[in-house]
Amino acid sequence: MLNDNLKIIEELESSVRSYVRSFPTVFTKAKGYKMWDMEGKEYIDFFSGAGALNYGHNDPKMKEKLVEYIMNDGITHSLDMATKAKVDFLDKFNEVILKPRNMDFKVMFPGPTGTNTVESALKLARKVTGRTDVISFTNGFHGMTIGSLSVTGNSSKRKGAGIPLQHVVTMPYDNFVSEDLDTLEYLERFLEDGGSGVDLPAAMILETVQGEGGINVARFEWLKKIEEICNKFGILLIIDDVQAGVGRTGTFFSFEPAGIKPDIVCLSKSIGGFGSPLALTLFKPELDIWNPGEHNGTFRGNNHAFVTATESLSYWEDKAFEESILRKSDKITEFLNSLVEKYPELKGEVKGRGFMQGIETPVSGLASKVAAAAFERGLIMETSGVEDQVFKLFPALIIDDEGLENGFKIIEESIKSIIKNKELVTN
Amino acid sequence: MLNDNLKIIEELESSVRSYVRSFPTVFTKAKGYKMWDMEGKEYIDFFSGAGALNYGHNDPKMKEKLVEYIMNDGITHSLDMATKAKVDFLDKFNEVILKPRNMDFKVMFPGPTGTNTVESALKLARKVTGRTDVISFTNGFHGMTIGSLSVTGNSSKRKGAGIPLQHVVTMPYDNFVSEDLDTLEYLERFLEDGGSGVDLPAAMILETVQGEGGINVARFEWLKKIEEICNKFGILLIIDDVQAGVGRTGTFFSFEPAGIKPDIVCLSKSIGGFGSPLALTLFKPELDIWNPGEHNGTFRGNNHAFVTATESLSYWEDKAFEESILRKSDKITEFLNSLVEKYPELKGEVKGRGFMQGIETPVSGLASKVAAAAFERGLIMETSGVEDQVFKLFPALIIDDEGLENGFKIIEESIKSIIKNKELVTN
Amino acid sequence: MLNDNLKIIEELESSVRSYVRSFPTVFTKAKGYKMWDMEGKEYIDFFSGAGALNYGHNDPKMKEKLVEYIMNDGITHSLDMATKAKVDFLDKFNEVILKPRNMDFKVMFPGPTGTNTVESALKLARKVTGRTDVISFTNGFHGMTIGSLSVTGNSSKRKGAGIPLQHVVTMPYDNFVSEDLDTLEYLERFLEDGGSGVDLPAAMILETVQGEGGINVARFEWLKKIEEICNKFGILLIIDDVQAGVGRTGTFFSFEPAGIKPDIVCLSKSIGGFGSPLALTLFKPELDIWNPGEHNGTFRGNNHAFVTATESLSYWEDKAFEESILRKSDKITEFLNSLVEKYPELKGEVKGRGFMQGIETPVSGLASKVAAAAFERGLIMETSGVEDQVFKLFPALIIDDEGLENGFKIIEESIKSIIKNKELVTN
Amino acid sequence: MLNDNLKIIEELESSVRSYVRSFPTVFTKAKGYKMWDMEGKEYIDFFSGAGALNYGHNDPKMKEKLVEYIMNDGITHSLDMATKAKVDFLDKFNEVILKPRNMDFKVMFPGPTGTNTVESALKLARKVTGRTDVISFTNGFHGMTIGSLSVTGNSSKRKGAGIPLQHVVTMPYDNFVSEDLDTLEYLERFLEDGGSGVDLPAAMILETVQGEGGINVARFEWLKKIEEICNKFGILLIIDDVQAGVGRTGTFFSFEPAGIKPDIVCLSKSIGGFGSPLALTLFKPELDIWNPGEHNGTFRGNNHAFVTATESLSYWEDKAFEESILRKSDKITEFLNSLVEKYPELKGEVKGRGFMQGIETPVSGLASKVAAAAFERGLIMETSGVEDQVFKLFPALIIDDEGLENGFKIIEESIKSIIKNKELVTN
Repeated sequence: MLNDNLKIIEELESSVRSYVRSFPTVFTKAKGYKMWDMEGKEYIDFFSGAGALNYGHNDPKMKEKLVEYIMNDGITHSLDMATKAKVDFLDKFNEVILKPRNMDFKVMFPGPTGTNTVESALKLARKVTGRTDVISFTNGFHGMTIGSLSVTGNSSKRKGAGIPLQHVVTMPYDNFVSEDLDTLEYLERFLEDGGSGVDLPAAMILETVQGEGGINVARFEWLKKIEEICNKFGILLIIDDVQAGVGRTGTFFSFEPAGIKPDIVCLSKSIGGFGSPLALTLFKPELDIWNPGEHNGTFRGNNHAFVTATESLSYWEDKAFEESILRKSDKITEFLNSLVEKYPELKGEVKGRGFMQGIETPVSGLASKVAAAAFERGLIMETSGVEDQVFKLFPALIIDDEGLENGFKIIEESIKSIIKNKELVTN
Repeated sequence: MLNDNLKIIEELESSVRSYVRSFPTVFTKAKGYKMWDMEGKEYIDFFSGAGALNYGHNDPKMKEKLVEYIMNDGITHSLDMATKAKVDFLDKFNEVILKPRNMDFKVMFPGPTGTNTVESALKLARKVTGRTDVISFTNGFHGMTIGSLSVTGNSSKRKGAGIPLQHVVTMPYDNFVSEDLDTLEYLERFLEDGGSGVDLPAAMILETVQGEGGINVARFEWLKKIEEICNKFGILLIIDDVQAGVGRTGTFFSFEPAGIKPDIVCLSKSIGGFGSPLALTLFKPELDIWNPGEHNGTFRGNNHAFVTATESLSYWEDKAFEESILRKSDKITEFLNSLVEKYPELKGEVKGRGFMQGIETPVSGLASKVAAAAFERGLIMETSGVEDQVFKLFPALIIDDEGLENGFKIIEESIKSIIKNKELVTN
Repeated sequence: MLNDNLKIIEELESSVRSYVRSFPTVFTKAKGYKMWDMEGKEYIDFFSGAGALNYGHNDPKMKEKLVEYIMNDGITHSLDMATKAKVDFLDKFNEVILKPRNMDFKVMFPGPTGTNTVESALKLARKVTGRTDVISFTNGFHGMTIGSLSVTGNSSKRKGAGIPLQHVVTMPYDNFVSEDLDTLEYLERFLEDGGSGVDLPAAMILETVQGEGGINVARFEWLKKIEEICNKFGILLIIDDVQAGVGRTGTFFSFEPAGIKPDIVCLSKSIGGFGSPLALTLFKPELDIWNPGEHNGTFRGNNHAFVTATESLSYWEDKAFEESILRKSDKITEFLNSLVEKYPELKGEVKGRGFMQGIETPVSGLASKVAAAAFERGLIMETSGVEDQVFKLFPALIIDDEGLENGFKIIEESIKSIIKNKELVTN
Repeated sequence: MLNDNLKIIEELESSVRSYVRSFPTVFTKAKGYKMWDMEGKEYIDFFSGAGALNYGHNDPKMKEKLVEYIMNDGITHSLDMATKAKVDFLDKFNEVILKPRNMDFKVMFPGPTGTNTVESALKLARKVTGRTDVISFTNGFHGMTIGSLSVTGNSSKRKGAGIPLQHVVTMPYDNFVSEDLDTLEYLERFLEDGGSGVDLPAAMILETVQGEGGINVARFEWLKKIEEICNKFGILLIIDDVQAGVGRTGTFFSFEPAGIKPDIVCLSKSIGGFGSPLALTLFKPELDIWNPGEHNGTFRGNNHAFVTATESLSYWEDKAFEESILRKSDKITEFLNSLVEKYPELKGEVKGRGFMQGIETPVSGLASKVAAAAFERGLIMETSGVEDQVFKLFPALIIDDEGLENGFKIIEESIKSIIKNKELVTN
């Protein structure tokens, strides 16, 4: 029965499918941090839709609001006509998120995916500055449409474009070359020297923690320095907070603790709250020089997502939510540190911050083996990095201590089982 | 109260918003072909989410299935992990749509928007052929991310890119130059002459009816000739059926009556049935050379949309559905022809086919005035074309005769009211 | 001895060499319209350095001036410092060429090759208009550096770039599609329709007679219409007169009889008079917004070429020179027409004008065979067109009737000898 | 009289002219390292046609050969037909230059300018590797046509392109960031990390001493490391020796003392010996996969330049020539060091090697003032660098000690005169 279903996938779906290969079952139900497949097997979810399910699955309050909305024949699809659901979202987003953080941003609704908000951000930066180039950073990941792919580092993804990707200069992310090399001195030389071959760019785009690129963390002082350089040269700073935002690192925006003020912010994934497609592009009001309809998209008014998004913001009304994330983050760090210490065979390094942590291992294929062993034991966990060299823990922010610990247990057992088998840890 | 809500939009939402300017109210509820705003005013919807609501609003059966699914904690978001909802959709799509039409297509789920499916189609065509250029057609519209925008004709949208759009050659759509000029002879000369400066392209991409470009219809013999040329030169044929597909022109795929077999088909908008974001890219199995994950997107597994999409396919199990569309299409044609005849001041030309028709008028601003007058009278209708020279009728396919006639009445009254005021019809 | 010398070429020179393959001998001497190889064999030159030797080889007066200049230790190389030789050239060019034709052009000295003047013209047009795209024409040939190659039609040459060639839209040259199709109606539609996907270009660039592209002639009314369209849309008109200029078609500039006034003119090849590298870019004074040194090149001040160029202009002081070209042109036309009539096996069509004529034959390989047979008989003649489908007569303008007739005789004998051998004329 | 001549230049020549602005006179005669203007004023030439006149002006032996050749009606212009003059050049170049240095290179004759050889090198590298990107270096200068300009660093020159310059990644030249920073560690990280956003390039292109970029010298160990990295990653190494080659740094090729073996070498400027346009592209035989005529140019067979080039190679038959350059180079270094010491107001730094040295001064405008003062005193000398921050000494290699010393005297006097005037040395 399960196999019949998987066979339908195999026969009809393109070979481009990927996660079904790592998690070869058919899921039917999910609640909080748990998922169940059609045979009733339970899984702990340390993946969370790659960061799209920060509030867990089927949050009861959002669910209630959504069902009520549908039952009342609320508008589902509205493009950018005004709907009550949208007005309510905008209002609450302003009251709960923007105002308390002293952020004065205009909100744009691009197509409801991460790559659409990135494309809109790049277009706006180019329009505002009249410049064509954008500086991106090594191992950045911003999406799969041509504009976003141009600023993405991964070479096999880039090759998929089928055309040379242009109008971008890649600079080294924090710690890219080595811990000692101040790569920003380098970047600055390129900008200030009129013979450098690097034209003044419209913008810099970066993630404060690189999720797909290998859970690389930019230090706060590095981010501050980036902001300074942007200000000095009149370059717009775009923070792509699609994966690291909406609480994933402990604060609503990932850049809050660095004390920087980006010009443009990209949000998607968990912004809808419930896992439904939604994306926002935020920018300083003085940048809002769009003509009506100059960038659009059919699904930019996904009202089901407005309804659950509005409800999800309630989490942020209570400071205790942020505190709980930080407390549990420490627990994760502690656990990962202990793993690295206890299992030197991993040659592991703990990376990340908040609910966006993992272990990088130079042992070829090891991270994938750990993830596969964990799946067999009922834990869903992903790898990351251009060589899949990191296994990463992405639990829902609402996970309780028991859930965390059960997950930890499975991970440790998985590691043990692999390490026993010496062949598996030999490169 | 309404104004308070509109003021929130104005203060917080970017100036890029557009439809709220044409339809300045706040909607709350919708059912079938009707919508209501927060003051309770009722509207007939001849817009249908720009083709994303072909089955009308809140279809009762889909609604029932969706609510049931949510109540049972069905998976909302799954990336490309397998879920029962996805398997069921694939199975039914194959049984109800592909098999009866003798179509052997692999199904890919890109990000859930029209532009994402177009981007994936372009990438695949370039990967398969190893060529970089793509031939697009005048007044084509394919989306707003850089790849899709490159093959879009509208110059003000193109300018929004902020970078030169490359790797594309635009050829004249059917009847672009004049009715007498055979533009395909022209196109073929470019391909066959080694000194033409036009490199052999990976693909041609086109809509069979251009929705945004002004309701331009390609004749079936023109489409057949395009297919022949593609076959002759080994060029892949991509039909972008995002707007014209899913019944909008009378058949599930818009190209069915032309008897052509495209290599790649792009679907979105109404494919989800209920107005929720979903997109599919279909292609011949021999083109399925994607590497796993080579093109992806966080929201490619939108299960709410799978659930309603599956239910929506039931419409197509009964031949009577197609027949009813065609019958009502004729009614629309008849009505539009009568308008052109009765109101010579329009200098009108009826354009389009199926539920995708409109009147083009060379009188500057007139189409917009008609749409605005109709809105005041309780009808939602859009304009189209690079100069907004067309007002277009996009009712839901499920509209009944009464709905159609009420809509017609409002349109005619709107025209009358404008024509009375002579100034309005003077260029 | 001859073979020893050819062997040195073969061993040391890159496989990119081409003419030595068609004309496999080693030349030592040349005078007027004749050349001699190291074995003393005499050749009539109907090739003239592909149009770089319009005044023949070693013109006695130019030779005298050049030797005198060198003997007196005149400056050879001056970049764009002022030299007496340069001043004298500018002055005489103005007096003899520009003023009598009522042309008010600024003169720029780019690097001394055809492709350098084209690159400078494209840069200037883009700088002046602030636009990036350029319209080129099918089968146009403008040079081999990336900028010029972008506007060149030949696909195998384009492929040599190794990168996609961009920022250009190719439009059909006169008669490209067929004699009946008004391709300018087509071009104009693209420019006037805001949804055409063709952005307003900086310039159009074209040759009035396409030398490399197959001796295609643009009708004067077509050229006038091009000029009109350029004026209407504010597009700069660049005439690439590198091959067709300096008398090759009968007048100094090839566009004179069409009565058009290009904005920018590219000159090279015969402008130096003696076969030494030189190139000029001419443009209307209001376009002269270059910054000093914004475009440069080490050999832009080739004084030996200034000296001979100055002397060569004396030819144009006497109207009889132009008249003699036209008279001899008619002779060439007559001869070619007679060939076509007498040898129907050629399926020939006479093409070109002035001293730039040839016969196009659809019989595969035939034109090359004629040229090869002629070489054996002591005549140097080239083929042209993307399939080498044309053999072309490019004698020096100073050739006398005897020389012409001797050349004609060899060509006719060559054709006869090939036609006798039936296999050679079968496709 | 002089003014009349300068006025002709001003009226007729484009504003793009540059050197005539720094050296506002009209030259008539030149011999060895001296030039004379039309008023008979004598100048010492420390400029040497920007490196195109390494053997001085009107070398008596070359002059004799050239005049003899012309008097005998030798072929002037031959495209790539074989001529005795070309064969003799190839033969002697092989015997005198390539063989003794154990270099096995194929010789290609592109159009006779520096930018043409660079364009041919880039095309070949892309063709051989099938890759599109090229790595260039900060402050590199390679020419003004679009391909060469893409790999040139200077931002104002780049802006002149009028289109975004693509398919290039700029890396830091030796010492670009600071003396302590190992920029090659940086470069290597980009190449080895699959997420770096830098695609594997076809080639790296660089000058061993950057002439236009500010007389920056790459250390030999840096060049060796570059070669190692190229070998490791299968990247072709192109040395642009247009300015630094043909003895300018002391050896025929500038890279000889570094002990590296580039894959492709670009030569022009002094390769013709006498100041006439000529360029060569040299490459390893296994790279010679050009199709006949795939890259060409009308003036690639400039026989006058072959004749003088052949004669010029005689200088290299005697080791004493190289030794004399090195001896005199030391003299130049000594002199410049003494200047820096004696005139601390210069804040000078001596840069360069061989006959390619200069002083960089951070005092804004100072280098230009020194050059201007020297011109008044009868010395021709150029500035270099993106801010004209270097005055550079480029005497002919054949200059004698007296000539050098007279030049030194003028430079020192010029500096003194400026330093006296305090205002001139204040930023």
